[in-house]
Amino acid sequence: MPANRAPAEIGMTVHNVDTPALLIDLDAFDRNVRRMAQQAANAGVALRPHAKTHKCPAIALKQIALGAVGVCCQKVSEAEAMVDGGVQDVLISNEIVGHQKLARLVALAQRARIAVCVDDRENIAALGQAAQAAKIALNVLVEINVGADRCGAAPGEPALELAHQVSTTAGLSFAGLQAYYGSAQHLRTAEQRSEAIGAAIRHARQTRDMLHRSSLECRIISGAGTGTYSLEAGSGVYNELQPGSYVFMDVDYARNRADDGRPFSEFEHSLFVYTTVMSHTTADRAVVDAGMKALSVDSGMPAVSGIEGAEYVGASDEHGTLKLSAAAPPIRLGDKMRLIPGHCDPTVNLHEWYVGVRNDRVEALWQITARGPGF
Amino acid sequence: MPANRAPAEIGMTVHNVDTPALLIDLDAFDRNVRRMAQQAANAGVALRPHAKTHKCPAIALKQIALGAVGVCCQKVSEAEAMVDGGVQDVLISNEIVGHQKLARLVALAQRARIAVCVDDRENIAALGQAAQAAKIALNVLVEINVGADRCGAAPGEPALELAHQVSTTAGLSFAGLQAYYGSAQHLRTAEQRSEAIGAAIRHARQTRDMLHRSSLECRIISGAGTGTYSLEAGSGVYNELQPGSYVFMDVDYARNRADDGRPFSEFEHSLFVYTTVMSHTTADRAVVDAGMKALSVDSGMPAVSGIEGAEYVGASDEHGTLKLSAAAPPIRLGDKMRLIPGHCDPTVNLHEWYVGVRNDRVEALWQITARGPGF
Repeated sequence: MPANRAPAEIGMTVHNVDTPALLIDLDAFDRNVRRMAQQAANAGVALRPHAKTHKCPAIALKQIALGAVGVCCQKVSEAEAMVDGGVQDVLISNEIVGHQKLARLVALAQRARIAVCVDDRENIAALGQAAQAAKIALNVLVEINVGADRCGAAPGEPALELAHQVSTTAGLSFAGLQAYYGSAQHLRTAEQRSEAIGAAIRHARQTRDMLHRSSLECRIISGAGTGTYSLEAGSGVYNELQPGSYVFMDVDYARNRADDGRPFSEFEHSLFVYTTVMSHTTADRAVVDAGMKALSVDSGMPAVSGIEGAEYVGASDEHGTLKLSAAAPPIRLGDKMRLIPGHCDPTVNLHEWYVGVRNDRVEALWQITARGPGF
Repeated sequence: MPANRAPAEIGMTVHNVDTPALLIDLDAFDRNVRRMAQQAANAGVALRPHAKTHKCPAIALKQIALGAVGVCCQKVSEAEAMVDGGVQDVLISNEIVGHQKLARLVALAQRARIAVCVDDRENIAALGQAAQAAKIALNVLVEINVGADRCGAAPGEPALELAHQVSTTAGLSFAGLQAYYGSAQHLRTAEQRSEAIGAAIRHARQTRDMLHRSSLECRIISGAGTGTYSLEAGSGVYNELQPGSYVFMDVDYARNRADDGRPFSEFEHSLFVYTTVMSHTTADRAVVDAGMKALSVDSGMPAVSGIEGAEYVGASDEHGTLKLSAAAPPIRLGDKMRLIPGHCDPTVNLHEWYVGVRNDRVEALWQITARGPGF
């Protein structure tokens, strides 16, 4: 069996797709992609969607065709896959450390427009040496910690010092600020998100102004995710948005609430794990063939789409256990159903192919070439 | 960059392995493999290790070289990868449903010794048709639910009915019982595990005896995992053991306690996710490049190996956040360290290569050819 075998063929009906498979509802997906492009255009900011969600150049090219200026990646290996797939502009919205990765990063920057983030003096020096050796000018953003407490220099003076160092390091070109607040995306109420991003905007503005006073121009101020993008878009500070999950959505994002307290429903679930009932020995239980090898449970269990009374209650490596209530329709061995992933990004990373579906037919097979641990 | 690029080269020192990478401490691994082979031999039962843990034919062949009769798999795709890698005897310890998978299953049985499990009448009929079409006699075990409440027919009469059906279905050969109690592996005290497996043994014995009275011979009674194997081995009922995790161990298994209440330490941690410090902007925090793309957090966070005062407290998609106490040694950007996975099986599934290490050198690169969602 070839290693890259896909679970479907173009033209087959959905019911014949082998399982577990990652389905995209192409109508919903297209609406999501268009909607975010329109929202960014309306706000007058650039859209640079995050490819860490989809890991697929075919999807990146669709986003770019609708106006995105390029994509974000988190790993050199992801950026390589994007450039190999035809993407010409990638911001690695993350720090890259280690001589092998730096060598690959600057080699990539010889054949595409690449930018990378920094938060450390030694790393800036190493990047400069690698860039000089490759005879390129590498675009560098200083990442500031706007609340996530993960990577990033403190806003203000520490960021200014790093920006100065970048601007005076041969081989590097200072491009601006990375100011992403990841954990804010999943704050459940609009008020919580607004408060968190309000603080992030203040940090970004203050740092931008401080840099400006030192004649360090922030060409790019980049950040935002699916949960908060409208706040950054309207900030007057951020000029690039980097949401990823909006193309697919997931159960975790569906827990967010909008201003009016209703579910955050601007984007639609377009991604599903297609699965088969493989055991059904008692009336109240069915076992499906999608467990932790086919979906990630880090943010909770998947939801069973469109089947009342069926709840996915447990994932083991190769099995998902469904609890069936009296409200559930009759379930038979071999039945196939759609699960909405708990968390889209790590679920996608488990698969090699998207099976794009429209009108009950397989219309597209897109390879997830940027999947993997990212060394 | 080739899709199957490995993070290391044979002969390099460990420090030069790119990250995130899956390291095997070959000395500890060899001891684990030998110890289980010896334990099974001492107990006079066959060892058929579960390949769902390692997903790697190179490791399967090492287990077989030390006396294992073959391996178990959970998916047809895993079994195909094993046979492609030279393994000649595979028990698929799971139900296989769907016409595409059945066609592949019987094709595989034309070139290796294959057995599969059943718990459903319709599935038995479909297996028989597929086997007849392929002109093979497929070995079939009836799976009984011995406590896990996942797959498997109820012990006793329901299992007997299925065994009868198998034995009278053209193309199928009744081979015995699958009686695995997965969740018992992770019961923390020896007493809890003993109680659970005691019940499983009673179910298996009762069903075996009932089948025997109906002239249905159970050539194989298979089950057991790393946490409980000694109980099944000494049962006088089970004659095949199918543990998987013992080759690697993980943080979750290390939470098990032995008879004397001390940590269950018969097997050693031999599997590590090698990772690099990629951000270190405050004294109490370091960020490493191994998050949920490089390790699974379904059973909790990984442990930092050999660094006092460093705790892995949070995984995001591409980042792991370490909390550093005052006891931690100085940490520098670019430092590499070993993480012990929380759960070995789904962690392995994220990687394409094992990097086998001995005496600080890379000695082996083994491809994880059975990884993937398993359609």
